[in-house]
Amino acid sequence: MENCDKKAVVLLSGGIDSSTCLAIAKQQGHETYALSFQYHQRHQIEIAAARRVAEAFKVEAHMILELPLGNIGGSALTADIEVPKSADVSLMPKGIPVTYVPARNTIFLSFALAWAEVLSAENVFIGVNALDYSGYPDCRPEYIHAFETMANLATKKTIEGTIRFRIHTPLIRLSKAEIIKKGIQLGVDYGITHSCYDPDPHGRACGHCDSCLLRRKGFIEAGEPDPTIYVK
Amino acid sequence: MENCDKKAVVLLSGGIDSSTCLAIAKQQGHETYALSFQYHQRHQIEIAAARRVAEAFKVEAHMILELPLGNIGGSALTADIEVPKSADVSLMPKGIPVTYVPARNTIFLSFALAWAEVLSAENVFIGVNALDYSGYPDCRPEYIHAFETMANLATKKTIEGTIRFRIHTPLIRLSKAEIIKKGIQLGVDYGITHSCYDPDPHGRACGHCDSCLLRRKGFIEAGEPDPTIYVK
Repeated sequence: MENCDKKAVVLLSGGIDSSTCLAIAKQQGHETYALSFQYHQRHQIEIAAARRVAEAFKVEAHMILELPLGNIGGSALTADIEVPKSADVSLMPKGIPVTYVPARNTIFLSFALAWAEVLSAENVFIGVNALDYSGYPDCRPEYIHAFETMANLATKKTIEGTIRFRIHTPLIRLSKAEIIKKGIQLGVDYGITHSCYDPDPHGRACGHCDSCLLRRKGFIEAGEPDPTIYVK
Repeated sequence: MENCDKKAVVLLSGGIDSSTCLAIAKQQGHETYALSFQYHQRHQIEIAAARRVAEAFKVEAHMILELPLGNIGGSALTADIEVPKSADVSLMPKGIPVTYVPARNTIFLSFALAWAEVLSAENVFIGVNALDYSGYPDCRPEYIHAFETMANLATKKTIEGTIRFRIHTPLIRLSKAEIIKKGIQLGVDYGITHSCYDPDPHGRACGHCDSCLLRRKGFIEAGEPDPTIYVK
């Protein structure tokens, strides 16, 4: 009899949130299986970060899947739309930003569900955040709850009653500063993570996209040194 | 103002069910956008069928996406597991078959959702069938309903209130024979469709996999000639 309750698929982009999420899954005693996706221009830098983090946390396996999200478009991250920059968090445009990727978390969680079923893993971890998030609809608790309900009707092993999927969102109510503090407690080296939506050719963070601004603010509010090298 | 209510993304594998589903979407007056996936060994033959059907029904666009389901495995369709053959439908093994692909419809519907949002299409059609189906959990009404609920919490346009997604399953309560009769009424040429899980190198149907057996039985019960060329 496999220990389904111990195994966890962890979505890992190599940024602050997913890296902290992996650290939490490990701390809770899970056998972790990291899942990353290549789907946009900056994927080389992001995947390199995900690999470093997966290695640092000694995951059982790290699967990297290439997804054709660019064909669908509709986002500054996958189509030819400029990534917006602001001088400060307070100047970030309100509402759902152009970096929103249509149905991204639904697609990511669907692949996590498929792998979880093959592994007989009951647990899926995703580092979504409803507080300091960038306004994405698929980061809210009601969305995650609806996905979990659907997942438990979707697969052979749930119908047969051998496993029951749980989508874990340990960061959902935390601020970026709280996430960073938690991660540092758990030994996350944020120097090996990557957040920027628009890095330079050397992989250095732009410092002014939404993701950089939220990262910078998080380190300041956490009172921790930010190990990131920003272009400006 | 776009007519979101008129546009429909139709999942199209090029088999009997999805081709009939496309015909029904057209008959209902939808502008149709066909979505097909390459994810297994026999995809060349299946995609060729999907292209023929999409062309016959003059869809607005046909998107074909390559998905890395083989990396995840867990199915006779994507991994190195033999496709089962039986002499007759009555001898098909009971329960969920090894051709089950983990979370397949969840993955397919997630991409349909992404494209529907980009197109501002309210409608997604999927040819699932809970009656004469092969025992797949993600073909049941309760699963589809849960997916629809989740979808309406997942995306920018649903949160902003500009569209409300509907997952249409016009075949869900029909037998294979009823599907075939309906399709013939609507002008589907089943000679250009493809069902077999294990075709020979010339693309000819094996005649004895679950999919061939259900197809054969469907034509017999519909009292219609089966245009398929079977190896035996």
